Amino acid sequence: MSSTYGENLKLSIFGQSHGPAIGMTLDGIPAGLPVDLDILQSFLNRRAPGQNDWSTPRREEDRPEFLAGILDGFTCGAPIAAVIHNRNTRSGDYNNLKDCPRPGHADYTAQVKYGGFQDAAGGGHFSGRLTAPLCIAGGLCIQWLAENGIRLGARIVSIGGEHDDSDVNRLAPQLDLIQKDFPVFSADAGIRMRKKIAEARADGDSLGGMIECYITGLPAGLGEPMFGGVESRIAQIVYGIPAVKSVSFGAGYLAGSMRGSQCNDAYVLENGTVRTLSNHAGGILGGITNGMPVIFQTVIKPTPSISRSQQSISLAKGDTQGLIITGRHDPCIVPRAVPVIEAAAAITIYDLILGNTQTSRRK
Amino acid sequence: MSSTYGENLKLSIFGQSHGPAIGMTLDGIPAGLPVDLDILQSFLNRRAPGQNDWSTPRREEDRPEFLAGILDGFTCGAPIAAVIHNRNTRSGDYNNLKDCPRPGHADYTAQVKYGGFQDAAGGGHFSGRLTAPLCIAGGLCIQWLAENGIRLGARIVSIGGEHDDSDVNRLAPQLDLIQKDFPVFSADAGIRMRKKIAEARADGDSLGGMIECYITGLPAGLGEPMFGGVESRIAQIVYGIPAVKSVSFGAGYLAGSMRGSQCNDAYVLENGTVRTLSNHAGGILGGITNGMPVIFQTVIKPTPSISRSQQSISLAKGDTQGLIITGRHDPCIVPRAVPVIEAAAAITIYDLILGNTQTSRRK
Amino acid sequence: MSSTYGENLKLSIFGQSHGPAIGMTLDGIPAGLPVDLDILQSFLNRRAPGQNDWSTPRREEDRPEFLAGILDGFTCGAPIAAVIHNRNTRSGDYNNLKDCPRPGHADYTAQVKYGGFQDAAGGGHFSGRLTAPLCIAGGLCIQWLAENGIRLGARIVSIGGEHDDSDVNRLAPQLDLIQKDFPVFSADAGIRMRKKIAEARADGDSLGGMIECYITGLPAGLGEPMFGGVESRIAQIVYGIPAVKSVSFGAGYLAGSMRGSQCNDAYVLENGTVRTLSNHAGGILGGITNGMPVIFQTVIKPTPSISRSQQSISLAKGDTQGLIITGRHDPCIVPRAVPVIEAAAAITIYDLILGNTQTSRRK
Amino acid sequence: MSSTYGENLKLSIFGQSHGPAIGMTLDGIPAGLPVDLDILQSFLNRRAPGQNDWSTPRREEDRPEFLAGILDGFTCGAPIAAVIHNRNTRSGDYNNLKDCPRPGHADYTAQVKYGGFQDAAGGGHFSGRLTAPLCIAGGLCIQWLAENGIRLGARIVSIGGEHDDSDVNRLAPQLDLIQKDFPVFSADAGIRMRKKIAEARADGDSLGGMIECYITGLPAGLGEPMFGGVESRIAQIVYGIPAVKSVSFGAGYLAGSMRGSQCNDAYVLENGTVRTLSNHAGGILGGITNGMPVIFQTVIKPTPSISRSQQSISLAKGDTQGLIITGRHDPCIVPRAVPVIEAAAAITIYDLILGNTQTSRRK
Repeated sequence: MSSTYGENLKLSIFGQSHGPAIGMTLDGIPAGLPVDLDILQSFLNRRAPGQNDWSTPRREEDRPEFLAGILDGFTCGAPIAAVIHNRNTRSGDYNNLKDCPRPGHADYTAQVKYGGFQDAAGGGHFSGRLTAPLCIAGGLCIQWLAENGIRLGARIVSIGGEHDDSDVNRLAPQLDLIQKDFPVFSADAGIRMRKKIAEARADGDSLGGMIECYITGLPAGLGEPMFGGVESRIAQIVYGIPAVKSVSFGAGYLAGSMRGSQCNDAYVLENGTVRTLSNHAGGILGGITNGMPVIFQTVIKPTPSISRSQQSISLAKGDTQGLIITGRHDPCIVPRAVPVIEAAAAITIYDLILGNTQTSRRK
Repeated sequence: MSSTYGENLKLSIFGQSHGPAIGMTLDGIPAGLPVDLDILQSFLNRRAPGQNDWSTPRREEDRPEFLAGILDGFTCGAPIAAVIHNRNTRSGDYNNLKDCPRPGHADYTAQVKYGGFQDAAGGGHFSGRLTAPLCIAGGLCIQWLAENGIRLGARIVSIGGEHDDSDVNRLAPQLDLIQKDFPVFSADAGIRMRKKIAEARADGDSLGGMIECYITGLPAGLGEPMFGGVESRIAQIVYGIPAVKSVSFGAGYLAGSMRGSQCNDAYVLENGTVRTLSNHAGGILGGITNGMPVIFQTVIKPTPSISRSQQSISLAKGDTQGLIITGRHDPCIVPRAVPVIEAAAAITIYDLILGNTQTSRRK
Repeated sequence: MSSTYGENLKLSIFGQSHGPAIGMTLDGIPAGLPVDLDILQSFLNRRAPGQNDWSTPRREEDRPEFLAGILDGFTCGAPIAAVIHNRNTRSGDYNNLKDCPRPGHADYTAQVKYGGFQDAAGGGHFSGRLTAPLCIAGGLCIQWLAENGIRLGARIVSIGGEHDDSDVNRLAPQLDLIQKDFPVFSADAGIRMRKKIAEARADGDSLGGMIECYITGLPAGLGEPMFGGVESRIAQIVYGIPAVKSVSFGAGYLAGSMRGSQCNDAYVLENGTVRTLSNHAGGILGGITNGMPVIFQTVIKPTPSISRSQQSISLAKGDTQGLIITGRHDPCIVPRAVPVIEAAAAITIYDLILGNTQTSRRK
Repeated sequence: MSSTYGENLKLSIFGQSHGPAIGMTLDGIPAGLPVDLDILQSFLNRRAPGQNDWSTPRREEDRPEFLAGILDGFTCGAPIAAVIHNRNTRSGDYNNLKDCPRPGHADYTAQVKYGGFQDAAGGGHFSGRLTAPLCIAGGLCIQWLAENGIRLGARIVSIGGEHDDSDVNRLAPQLDLIQKDFPVFSADAGIRMRKKIAEARADGDSLGGMIECYITGLPAGLGEPMFGGVESRIAQIVYGIPAVKSVSFGAGYLAGSMRGSQCNDAYVLENGTVRTLSNHAGGILGGITNGMPVIFQTVIKPTPSISRSQQSISLAKGDTQGLIITGRHDPCIVPRAVPVIEAAAAITIYDLILGNTQTSRRK
């Protein structure tokens, strides 16, 4: 199924970039959970476009209207449904896309799959705009995880080759040190990254980057073996975010160059609690949390929409042709992707919390 | 659900490393598909232990017994069930694991999750041995994909920092050039990698590495948007393989340092067929295949079982203690993981083929 | 999962009786299917309240607003989303329900399950009003089935003990003979049933009844063995309709009194087509359609809302107390349930059609 | 998916009547649950054939071999797998079935669906023999439910029109009064039913009947609204049992003739516990248990295998032809179906117990 996720909760996302509305339903949520719509709105604002110099000038308020599932500030046990009506749409920009697909976008694959019936405007259902309803669901889950003492935070590791080399405490990541306006640990690295973005924009080009996400306060024992492991579940939802090309955990791709004696995290007891002295496992062993912070990296490719002339084809004429994309677009979506990654992770973790019924008797 | 995978086919894997048997059921497979058990056995032999100097000396024939679903060399529409009886088991080696968990293994997380009732011998259900039934299912899917003109092949990119830098044609990977005995493109790189493994073994240590998998002959239009994308589905199953810490597609983590003008794959028409001039997308746009080869990388951490002394704890005594793992283990599982990656990818792709009913009328 | 249904399509229903809106999302639908909103509205009007003397005077237009998935009269491959805004709500009627549950309603079970956080007004998410979004999904599926030559029709068999004893051709049910205004075969029986309803209403009481549904034009070979059989799938969705207490197929409960020689449907060839001489199987053998009409019966209990005084309890006072339900209600929901049954069956059958990929090669 | 069931547990059943083995995997079961194999065997013996004068003379020991998931008498958290090897097979009896389908069996529908590749011997995967692995899973769930104070019992209501009219206490069914050897309340009715079976057997014919199942000790609040209701889930699995044609709850089809004032179950408080004065709802309101016994009826059609000559067709010759079934068969499977119904219900209820995480805070 395409736009549905979850084992114990069931998230369903709908909408097209320039259709009447985008939205989500979220089923399987217990009754009686508090919902703070102001906190949710602050979270959504982190993703919303049009707020600064590195994102698209398209302005959307992204203010969700809740149609069901919430009553007097609490979940009521019925499925939650929320919509965001699209207002600032420009369907005229996109007439050409069914014939001449934009490189790096889903135009061509949608054309093959949907035979020309797809809503091509703005990428339709493939648009990054669909991460807004993901953030509604994720923003709610973040609130409910907080009630369980679980916190999430993500930061930009690199953009366009410019790295934030801050020394991160992987045993207890200091989420509060992540910069608010541009989520990096090192303000200086943030300045360098923004400079890179400005350069790319000036060149009519775009940049990608890497995001690292930290989840703290998790109990040990969350997740299932094999295909139900925490890595499998996080990777499945994160790869549902447009432009993601890599998902890694803990030491990630560096693990491939390590020796076992170096990569294994030694155990230690701290005040009766089992901990590890390093966290190359990213808090997960055998698909199951070990009580250490879960850490994962996501690589985002550069925004495929660029102003420079590109080579494409005309499907109708059966010929190669040049393509210049006008319309609005972000030179780098990495900063806006940060809360989206947090949202995706929160949905997964809350799903795992809901399904955590396998607690056995202790022998 | 832990050990169940698939949307249209439903794979269920069972067994513990030193239990009576391991096996799998595979439901949802059409009737009338041919099954060649000799070809399947050859495939399983690539994964089987005890065959060379870099794998564990534990010898298991890994010869599946089919209990259901196959009749006279064809699938009969009923669920397929196959088991491999464990013979060469040594349960005595593992008595200590519930108290003193091995670093990098699932011993501790299993202890927390299952409260001491888990089958700890040899890692139980978390053992790499469970990739044998995955290879039964995958080996069958490989045969059925071949009938559709779809081929898979994987090769080792690096082990312990030693790289195979062969120039790979990412528009048409030459699967036949992958070495048979040690799956690399460059025989020389293979020699260097094996030397690294021998050194690690001599040191009582272990190595990880990276594997790249290629799938050719895929039609465009396979996969679904968002969480049902090809990346989501492959990542979910591949992260079900023990020791995987990273899954990337196409340009993978390098995409994060590219500019859009460099990362976008330009379109071209070759004899009326839409192709791209590069393949940074790894054959997938918007979660859907574009007809180019699907390419993905998997990073495998070093085998956590090493002979060197490690620091662990005694849960009973509540104290730190040293741990020396005796018993049999691979200094590097990367070569044996190659067919497992192929199997996992084949299961996903065949699942997608079965579900490919959304072909619309053409406008 | 509570409000989600389907294997190949995925239906998700949301809303509470007196919340802002009710609606549905429908994922997994191919692109390019035509949608006629006028035909859909006519179908929805058959279920809508307030139109005649046997239904509640609550008036709702039940006019769906499509937010996603439909473009220029065709499905576009993206999930379909539609909402109906609730307008004629009277939340004041229902303040008492959390303390003093109405017999026969879900008030008490919701109170236990949701701990008082449920939206009790009008039954909340348990209201019969939630069958409106079911009818949106079903009404669409009916259109798409019609394109495949598949037709559905349901009729009232009995209400309050008053039967329509018309002789039905179970080999080729004449769907066009079902009365339009009150769906029975025998107009006379319809008059008797309506008289019964009027009597019950005059007594402040309510009636139940039985509905029989016919699906014609089905190919043989639809459905799966065991839990994926057509009976399993239809029963699962039909039991999701409030007030259903029995679902039977073909000869139904009469099969229990038959002998095998009487119940078995003998085979015959008609112009090269395999047919049966009777249809006690209701068109299904081993869970799979045999090409004969699928026939099933649904029993609806009497509307639990009655005007007569009933015995209930006060959960707060811990005491028995009388209850008089004011507010609006149908003395008999059976006529309005007829299109709901058709909708549910259509969703199931279309789901099966979408999943019908197991067609094997012919031996 | 055909042979897979469950939301929180995942049951997968495999095997063909005359294949090497039948069996099941059961995933999602917590660790540390005790398993008594002797009690399980006693349960399986109730279903096993060849034990008395009303069942098939085919003798099978039906002794499961556990391959995984159980260690030292407790579940270990890994998927449970069990097989029963088929011994007393007679494949020669069934050569004709692909050409000349037996009325009332799945021979023809399997032929259409699987194109002649199906394992036709003894009905293959459609055989009643596949209820043996269902009983393994169900027998285990019965043990685990008993630990939660939940008991199940089923009894024969009627066979071939012969009824057991015993007055059943539907508020507290006396499961211990069900006869052990032939599960009825009234021994006299049992004698009459067995006489009916003997007559049908003498006539080369067969009989169906009705079974009623009672589940006591359930907490209120189990189940979900709409498609996840207890009725939906029980009906889905029960319709997976061969020959079931009707599933009803509580007052069942009689509810259709009642008035609301009669059908509604009035509430009362007994020692602070909410109870109802009648149980027409069968313990379920809005899909959710209300704490009263869950009661449901299942109608089983007469065994389709009869010795009398029947009319069928030759698919090869394209012509009508007579058919005489030799081979072994039960004149009435209703008695043997009783434990199968209990097993199916137990699997559903245990699945619901596992998923019962939605307990909200109390307001």
